[in-house]
Amino acid sequence: MNLYGDSRSGNCYKIKLLAALLDIRLVWIGIDILAGDTHNDDFLGRNPNGKIPLLELDDGQFLAESNAILNYLAEGTDWLPSDRLARAQVLQWQFFEQYSHEPYIAVARFISLYLGLPEDRRAEYESRKAGGYRALDVMERQLSQSRWLVGDSPTIADISLYAYTHVAHEGGFELENYPAIRAWLARISSLPGHVPIGDDSLSHPQ
Amino acid sequence: MNLYGDSRSGNCYKIKLLAALLDIRLVWIGIDILAGDTHNDDFLGRNPNGKIPLLELDDGQFLAESNAILNYLAEGTDWLPSDRLARAQVLQWQFFEQYSHEPYIAVARFISLYLGLPEDRRAEYESRKAGGYRALDVMERQLSQSRWLVGDSPTIADISLYAYTHVAHEGGFELENYPAIRAWLARISSLPGHVPIGDDSLSHPQ
Repeated sequence: MNLYGDSRSGNCYKIKLLAALLDIRLVWIGIDILAGDTHNDDFLGRNPNGKIPLLELDDGQFLAESNAILNYLAEGTDWLPSDRLARAQVLQWQFFEQYSHEPYIAVARFISLYLGLPEDRRAEYESRKAGGYRALDVMERQLSQSRWLVGDSPTIADISLYAYTHVAHEGGFELENYPAIRAWLARISSLPGHVPIGDDSLSHPQ
Repeated sequence: MNLYGDSRSGNCYKIKLLAALLDIRLVWIGIDILAGDTHNDDFLGRNPNGKIPLLELDDGQFLAESNAILNYLAEGTDWLPSDRLARAQVLQWQFFEQYSHEPYIAVARFISLYLGLPEDRRAEYESRKAGGYRALDVMERQLSQSRWLVGDSPTIADISLYAYTHVAHEGGFELENYPAIRAWLARISSLPGHVPIGDDSLSHPQ
C-alpha cells in the first residue's frame, strides 16, 4: 500500500504512527501541501477533495480521510474494539477531533509555525486558540477519569487525538493546566514501536 | 433510547431520518440551541462538548456526534455494509461531511436563515458559500458515477450528506448545475419511511 502524505501534517502522522505500532508496511509518497501538490490534476484524479493523507490500496483503489484510513487499517486488531458501543465511542472521539479539535489546534499551529503568525491573521489565531483550549478541556475531563479515551487499552481514538495534541505547543498552547493530558501523551510516546512526527526516514523504504 | 436534538438542525435530522427508515423508536427531547440549552450545567454533564445530537442509551450511557450515532444505530443493518473497505468508504464520506461540507453549507445556512445574514457576517458568509460549492463539486463528481455514495444501495453516508445538502437552498446555494445531486436528493426523499426535517410531530410520542 502507498500513503500520500506530508511529514509535517498531524493528519498524515496518524497513519504513520498506527502503521509503525502495527508493523504495517506502507510506502510513503511525499506530498508538499504548501507547494500545491494536492491541487494539481494528477492528485485530484486520486482524491477529488484535494487532501492528504490518501491511502492507495494494492488494487489501485483510494481511501481518503485520516480517520477513515485508521479504521480501515486497525480493523481486526486491538486498536479497534469489536464491541458495538466501544466502536461508536471511538468514532465519537474521532469526529470530535475533526470538528472540535483539529480546526482549532492544527490551524493555530499552521498559522503560527508554517506562516510565522502574520499580523493580519492574529485575530483569527487568537480565536482558534480559544477553541483549541475548549477542546483540551473536554479531553482533560475524560482523561482525568480514564487512562485511555475509550476502554482499558489504547485505540485509534487515542492516535487521532494524540497527533495534533502532542505538537499543540507549536501552535502556542500551554499544557501546564492539563496534567491528565500530559500523562496520557507520555503513555502514548512510550508505546513500543512509537515513531515521532516529521521524521520521514522510517517511512521512505527506497 | 432518548435523543436530545433541535428539530432545525441537520445533524439532529440525520438521526431522526435513520430512525424513521429503520423503524427505531427514539424519544425526542427538544433542545433549543439558540436559547443556550446545550451550555447549561445539566446538559454539559451529559455531553461535556456541549453539542447535539446526543443519544442516551437505555442504560444511561451517552453517545455524541451525529455520525458516530448513525454508525451505532445502523450496525447490523443494510445501511452499514459489513465489508471492510465499504465501511471505511462510508466513514470517508462522513468525515468529508464534517470537515469539508458541514462547516460551509450548514454554517452558511445558519448565518442566512437563523441570523438573517447580518452585514458584519457577509464576508464570512461568502467565504462559507465558496467552500460549500467546492464540497458540492466533490459530491457531484461521485454521484455522476454512482447512484449512491458507497456501493449499490443507500448507506448512512448518504444520510449524512443528505441532511444539509437538501436544505442547502436555505443557505443561498443554487443546485442548478448539480443534476446528479438533485437526482440523488429525489431518490432519498422517496425512500419508504422518509420523514422531513423540522417536523417534530413524528418524534414526540407523548
